[in-house]
Amino acid sequence: MINVVFLGFGNVNSNLFKTLNNRNEITVKQIFNRNYIKMISPFENVPFTDDVSKIKEADIYIIGIPDDAISTFSESLPFQNKLVVHTSGGVSMGALSNNNRRGIFYPLQTFSKERSLDFKKIPICIEAENKKDLEMLRKLGETISENVVEISSEKRAKLHLAAVFVNNFTNYLYQISSEILEEEDLPFDLLKPLILETASKIENLSPEKAQTGPAIRNDAKTIEKHLHLLENSRYRKLYELFTEELKQSYGKKL
Amino acid sequence: MINVVFLGFGNVNSNLFKTLNNRNEITVKQIFNRNYIKMISPFENVPFTDDVSKIKEADIYIIGIPDDAISTFSESLPFQNKLVVHTSGGVSMGALSNNNRRGIFYPLQTFSKERSLDFKKIPICIEAENKKDLEMLRKLGETISENVVEISSEKRAKLHLAAVFVNNFTNYLYQISSEILEEEDLPFDLLKPLILETASKIENLSPEKAQTGPAIRNDAKTIEKHLHLLENSRYRKLYELFTEELKQSYGKKL
Repeated sequence: MINVVFLGFGNVNSNLFKTLNNRNEITVKQIFNRNYIKMISPFENVPFTDDVSKIKEADIYIIGIPDDAISTFSESLPFQNKLVVHTSGGVSMGALSNNNRRGIFYPLQTFSKERSLDFKKIPICIEAENKKDLEMLRKLGETISENVVEISSEKRAKLHLAAVFVNNFTNYLYQISSEILEEEDLPFDLLKPLILETASKIENLSPEKAQTGPAIRNDAKTIEKHLHLLENSRYRKLYELFTEELKQSYGKKL
Repeated sequence: MINVVFLGFGNVNSNLFKTLNNRNEITVKQIFNRNYIKMISPFENVPFTDDVSKIKEADIYIIGIPDDAISTFSESLPFQNKLVVHTSGGVSMGALSNNNRRGIFYPLQTFSKERSLDFKKIPICIEAENKKDLEMLRKLGETISENVVEISSEKRAKLHLAAVFVNNFTNYLYQISSEILEEEDLPFDLLKPLILETASKIENLSPEKAQTGPAIRNDAKTIEKHLHLLENSRYRKLYELFTEELKQSYGKKL
């Protein structure tokens, strides 16, 4: 049995809580959050506190709060020599206070309150200062995911950077396209099958092999037409930069 | 019964052929292609020609060839007053020769030889010079898709531009991230659940609501860290432009 306390209850921790609380091998001893949270069924029996001094004894403390608050908050915890981990992709293990044994439990996924996700395929990136803690985190991860991997803070920083490209920036491309369609009174729904297939395609095909479009065909006529359509648009710069990069990248390979 | 001849047999037409040939209401009379194609089972009985002068009589001729060849090729067809459509997002209906009745049959999707797609959810964008032809194209489209929509060449140009953003550019972001991971000897597989969830999320959530990341949080520390990681990378410019755009776009909304 692993006893867990959640410190903070944003998107990551609330999703982690929902899935970990279902496991026989796990007991969620308590949820701490700065602000009161009304726990709804079937979770109304999980103890809650908003008082740091009343945090209960546990095997693992999981911090899920904004990146820039992790360091100060971990310093403020009123206990010592416990295993305290955070769940952030972009913050190194060293940011945690060394009052406690430090670790990382980073589920590589985009979470929102609106969607319940199956954790089975979600990579859980773990890191710890000593072997025993690493094994404990692996055990915790394996109760919910088939893909628990040890990754150093240094590599995790790169992984997080790559995640920003495929998640934040990709979503912004969706946003741009929805605006282009809105101007023409066309529903964004038209693009959804394409968006889903673009993501599904690379399950079996490398992005390099999946790449298509006017830029890599060197289709100057279409590119010119697109630049004309974007004449007064703030998205013209992005179009130009992508086209230039694609030409350069695939031109080399021809 | 609608009789169809395919002119050209690239990714779009070969996928259209496979799905249309399954429909009781459709007969594929012939496939024309400049180069010989060996038809494999169960299609070995579909007539083939590489000779323009031997193209058979049909209700609809579907051109699926490179964009810049459509105009000249349609001019070279040795018949008149037939319904000739092309399948390209980026080419206007007017590019087709007016020797024949012109139309558009544009399935809005990314096709590859490696993947067989279900057409049911794929939007089919149709256009024609007269009502009767438009109805014929609608009938053809509705045998395979639940989403047949009439869209003018002008609007289709914008739709195609938006498709370039969500398909070509998004796939390039996948490519960039796979390179970032490769440098660290991390498998690209780690990002696949995130990529799929990013695309799935906007099924029910607008891209605007789904947007997350350091740029819209104005998280200067993380952005600085990322720019440092990209110090000698050719992708730094894209990171900077996205970050700037996201800040501007979401800053306004705060």
